[in-house]
Amino acid sequence: MADETRGVLIDLSGVLYVGDRAVPGAIDALGRLRDADVRLRFVTNTSRRTRADVVDKLRGLGYAIDTAEVFSAPLAARRAIQRQRLRPHLLVHPSVRADFDGLDSADPNAVVVGDAGERFDYDSLNAAFRVLVEDDGRPLISMGANRYFKDGDGGLSLDMGPFVEALAFAAGRKAMTVGKPAPAFFRDVLQDMGCKPATSVMIGDDLANDVGGAQAVGLTGVLVRTGKYRPADEHDDAVSPDAVVNDFAAAVDWLIG
Amino acid sequence: MADETRGVLIDLSGVLYVGDRAVPGAIDALGRLRDADVRLRFVTNTSRRTRADVVDKLRGLGYAIDTAEVFSAPLAARRAIQRQRLRPHLLVHPSVRADFDGLDSADPNAVVVGDAGERFDYDSLNAAFRVLVEDDGRPLISMGANRYFKDGDGGLSLDMGPFVEALAFAAGRKAMTVGKPAPAFFRDVLQDMGCKPATSVMIGDDLANDVGGAQAVGLTGVLVRTGKYRPADEHDDAVSPDAVVNDFAAAVDWLIG
Repeated sequence: MADETRGVLIDLSGVLYVGDRAVPGAIDALGRLRDADVRLRFVTNTSRRTRADVVDKLRGLGYAIDTAEVFSAPLAARRAIQRQRLRPHLLVHPSVRADFDGLDSADPNAVVVGDAGERFDYDSLNAAFRVLVEDDGRPLISMGANRYFKDGDGGLSLDMGPFVEALAFAAGRKAMTVGKPAPAFFRDVLQDMGCKPATSVMIGDDLANDVGGAQAVGLTGVLVRTGKYRPADEHDDAVSPDAVVNDFAAAVDWLIG
Repeated sequence: MADETRGVLIDLSGVLYVGDRAVPGAIDALGRLRDADVRLRFVTNTSRRTRADVVDKLRGLGYAIDTAEVFSAPLAARRAIQRQRLRPHLLVHPSVRADFDGLDSADPNAVVVGDAGERFDYDSLNAAFRVLVEDDGRPLISMGANRYFKDGDGGLSLDMGPFVEALAFAAGRKAMTVGKPAPAFFRDVLQDMGCKPATSVMIGDDLANDVGGAQAVGLTGVLVRTGKYRPADEHDDAVSPDAVVNDFAAAVDWLIG
């Protein structure tokens, strides 16, 4: 049963680190948060790293993290598959395949799409399409709907969303997104922590997926001015954060200061 | 100026031929149509053959065809590019590049997508996306919106539509389709023939793109029961053909018999 203990959900990329560097002051701030009477979960839409890899990266940067505290989009996809007893055709990056170990993928009756990067080619998309088009009832499960990301060369590059749209259009159905901002994602995390929405907070740098998604299920949404934050986020028509703070350390001050 | 001479627009694949064979009776029927007082144009959405290749195929099957009578989606794209004085980035099949010879493609400010087949891969799609995302005003021009086609192995395979959708979603704009069923396509053909919509007929096997597209600009739409025709086409909620006939020969009988 959920009690009155406060829950804090923390996005990773852009909040605790940017690229390969910890955000200044964030390691100490996480320590202060752990000393307070709150429960923590780390929530990420990355679909290019297994949960184990995410934990390794955070520890390598100096964060004290328990594996069970990390909720990722690939694991949300795994839960959706198990709940519906599906046999998934996986169109995912090779680096997250381990998150799907042990699932029955013979004679697939669903398609799961993650950020497959350069593995998005005609043959891999067509193979996924053929699974879908054989039966109108087969779900298309997506780990996220991001349109693009800032690539290593400084330019913008296609994220998984456009490829999910392509499959959805071809097969004539809507994709089911399992990562943020899906309400089920936030509810699963809250259930796992034993916390209520009204006493829980989401800290993120993505206005729509972190702040908007969390607010939609009743959490408080705090936006940090690091990572993918842009000043225009503070005057958005659709989402209005409960607080906007400079960085993760300031968010912790705002919460427990 | 348009006069009262009747115009007849004829789709190719599924009407005059299926695969590599002429539809029985169609060669004679075209001869009878040429003896009547009508003007003819051949209209195709194929974006894997140049106009010259289309003419070669028809002649090889035994059809008497003049090159200037053929209107294709790549040529419609070329007209759109020239009208708007654009410099196109081409994401098309190598076999239709000749239809775009002589256009200035340096420093592109538009993207043109045809059925590129296996050339739809991450890098080619990302290159097209980067042209679009640099400026919101850059148009995305599509030769068609077909979702899939029946492939050589008997299975369904992805057509160009899903890849156009992917780019449209990623870049946050709508694609402009220049082939059938675009009204501008039919109007261009009528203008070229000097015929009016009310005295012109479209004969095709594609309910939405041939019959519906033609009817939307005021032509009579005749559906043939060859090619991609399915019995369900005769009870469609959106499009109701002016006539449904067994094949092209029957359509000619219906027109001039």
